[in-house]
Amino acid sequence: MYAIGVDLGGTNLRIGAFLQDGECLGSSSIRTDVVGGPTVAIRDIAQAVDELKSTCASGKKLIGIGIGTPGPLELPVGILRNPPNLVGWSGFPLLQELKKALGPKVYLENDANLAALAEWLFGAGQNYACGGSLGMLTLGTGVGSGIILDGKIWHGFCGMGGEAGHVAVFEDGVPCGCGGRGCLEQYASATAISRLGREQGLKSLSGNSLTSAEIAGLAQEDNPAALEVYRIVGQSLGLSLAGLINTLNLPLYVIGGGVSQSWDLFAPAMFAELRSRSYVYRLTLPKQERTSEGADGQTFIVPAQRGSESGLLGAAMLPFHLQGFLEKEMQGSCSPAYQASPL
Amino acid sequence: MYAIGVDLGGTNLRIGAFLQDGECLGSSSIRTDVVGGPTVAIRDIAQAVDELKSTCASGKKLIGIGIGTPGPLELPVGILRNPPNLVGWSGFPLLQELKKALGPKVYLENDANLAALAEWLFGAGQNYACGGSLGMLTLGTGVGSGIILDGKIWHGFCGMGGEAGHVAVFEDGVPCGCGGRGCLEQYASATAISRLGREQGLKSLSGNSLTSAEIAGLAQEDNPAALEVYRIVGQSLGLSLAGLINTLNLPLYVIGGGVSQSWDLFAPAMFAELRSRSYVYRLTLPKQERTSEGADGQTFIVPAQRGSESGLLGAAMLPFHLQGFLEKEMQGSCSPAYQASPL
Repeated sequence: MYAIGVDLGGTNLRIGAFLQDGECLGSSSIRTDVVGGPTVAIRDIAQAVDELKSTCASGKKLIGIGIGTPGPLELPVGILRNPPNLVGWSGFPLLQELKKALGPKVYLENDANLAALAEWLFGAGQNYACGGSLGMLTLGTGVGSGIILDGKIWHGFCGMGGEAGHVAVFEDGVPCGCGGRGCLEQYASATAISRLGREQGLKSLSGNSLTSAEIAGLAQEDNPAALEVYRIVGQSLGLSLAGLINTLNLPLYVIGGGVSQSWDLFAPAMFAELRSRSYVYRLTLPKQERTSEGADGQTFIVPAQRGSESGLLGAAMLPFHLQGFLEKEMQGSCSPAYQASPL
Repeated sequence: MYAIGVDLGGTNLRIGAFLQDGECLGSSSIRTDVVGGPTVAIRDIAQAVDELKSTCASGKKLIGIGIGTPGPLELPVGILRNPPNLVGWSGFPLLQELKKALGPKVYLENDANLAALAEWLFGAGQNYACGGSLGMLTLGTGVGSGIILDGKIWHGFCGMGGEAGHVAVFEDGVPCGCGGRGCLEQYASATAISRLGREQGLKSLSGNSLTSAEIAGLAQEDNPAALEVYRIVGQSLGLSLAGLINTLNLPLYVIGGGVSQSWDLFAPAMFAELRSRSYVYRLTLPKQERTSEGADGQTFIVPAQRGSESGLLGAAMLPFHLQGFLEKEMQGSCSPAYQASPL
C-alpha cells in the first residue's frame, strides 16, 4: 500500500511514491510548463505517475494521489482563483480534469497546508504535544501558511483559510502582490529579504542580484545593515505570530522554508516582539522561561524539522490521512475544554 | 427543563433562567462586588440562583448553570489570569469554588465567547448559512471576541483563543492595557472612541466626559472631527477583519456591543479597508456585489442581531449546548473540503 504525492510548483513539478510511514520509494522532478497551462501539466503528471508506478511500486496497491498547488485554491471544487504563481490557470477545473486523467482517488490541496500536514505527522508535531493542532509559516519565495486544528487541515468555507502570509503586519507597509500592503510576505520571504537588503544599501559581491542567503552570510559576519534586515524579518514574524496566538491559542507554531535556516539571525527579534505583543504568549511561555504565574499550557515556536521535501511528503500523506489510515497520529484535541467539562 | 445563565461582569452581575428555545423565564441584576472578591461574588450568585429557582422555575428541571466572565480565563481548569476587569481575582480557583457552591453542572466560559454562541444560535447565525462557524467582535468598554468553528467554541489549548481585540491593527499605535500596542481595542471600543474624539479636539457639551454616543450624534450632524473618529473605527475594524478572513476564511463575522449601533458611521470605511486588504474577501464578496469571477462561497459581515443580553443568553445556552440538547442547531460544517472529497 502506497500513495503518490505531487508538488506542482510555479517552477518545478516534483513527484514521489511514499509508504504510510513516510518512507520514499522513489521520486522525480521536471520543470513545470507554466506557459503550456494546466492541460500540459496534467499530461506531464500522468506520465510521471505511470513511470513511478512501474519503476518503484510494482505489486503494491496505490491508495491515492495527493497534489499540492500554490493558492488561492478554491475547495472542495478544486479550482485556482487568480494564482500569482500559475498565471493563466485561473478558473480551470483542475481537480475535475486531474480525476479524468488519473482516476477518482485524486486529492487536491494548497501546498502550504501540505507542508503543515507533513510537519505535524513527521516533524515538529511529533516532538511537541500539540493535540493535533499547529500553525505553520513557510518562508520561501513567498510566505505560505497552513493551519491544522484538531487533526484536520483548516480550509475555511472555500479553501482559502490559513493565508497568514497575506495578513498585514505593518499596516502602512509596502504594497503586496495580493493587493494589500504591509503583508508578512513583504517582510519575511526570501524575495522580501533581498529587497530589504537593497533598501539597506547592500550589494551583491557576485555581480548577480542580492540573495537572502548572501545577506545571511553578511549578517553572520556582523554586517550592521544585514543584521538590521534580519531584525526586521524577526519583528514581522513576531507581529504575525502574536496575531495568530491571540486569535487561535495553538500550542505549536512551526517556521519552515529556506529562510528558516537563518533562525538564529531572526529569532531574537521575533521572540522579543512576540513577548511585547501577546499576553497569551506571555501567559503560556515554555515553563523554563517563566518568571511569574502563567497558564498551565505552553506555546512552542520552533523551526521546521522536515526540509524542502515537506510539501511533497505532505501531498503523499494526504490520501492516507483522508482515508483514515493515520488514526494513531490523529488522536487528541487542542481545544479540550468541553471534554473536561462535567457532562 | 431550563438552564440558568450568569453574566459576571466587572460592573454588573446579571442572572437569568431560560428555556432551550431562548425564552427568558426571569432575570435579575445586581452590582458586582469586585472589591469583595470572588468569594463574595459566588455567595451573591448562589443567592440569586436560589431566588430564580423559587420564583420562576418551580417544577422545572434545571439542567445546568452557565457562567460568563471577562478573560483571560484559563480552561478547562477555570482560573482567571490577570483579568483587567476583575483585579485581584487572578489565580483564584473559580470553577472549583463555583461547583462547591452551585453543584457539579456548572460551566464557565469567556463572556465574549458566549455572546458569539448566542449570535450563532439565536442571531445572525440563523439568518446566514454559516456552517456552524462565525467570528464575533463585541465593541463595548473593551473589544471582546469569540470564534465558533464547526459548532464548537474555539478555545485554543488553554482557553485563550479568540482574543482578536488584542491583535495589533496599527503596529505603531497607542499602548494597550494588554501590554501590546495598536490593538483593535484601542481603536474600536467605546473607550477608544472617547479618546479618539478628544484627540480630534472634540469636547462634551454636557460638561461630563465625552462619550462614544455623543461623538456618534455629532457625526450624524456631519461634524468633520466626529466623522473622522468613526472613519478610524471603521479602518481598524477593516484591518482586523482582513486578518481574520485571510487566516480563517469563515463565512460570517458579526459585530456587536454598544458601538455597533453606529454601524452606518463606521461601515463604509470598514468595507473599503477590508476590500483593499483581503483578496480572500474580494474573491468571496456577497454575490450581488461581485464584478468578476469569485469563489463559490460568500463572506458576510453583519451587525449583531441580539442586543446587550447576548452574553446572558449565551451563558444560559451553554449547558444545553454542551449536553447535546441543541443538536439541530449544530449541524453543518464550515470546512467541508474533506467531506466532498472522493473517499
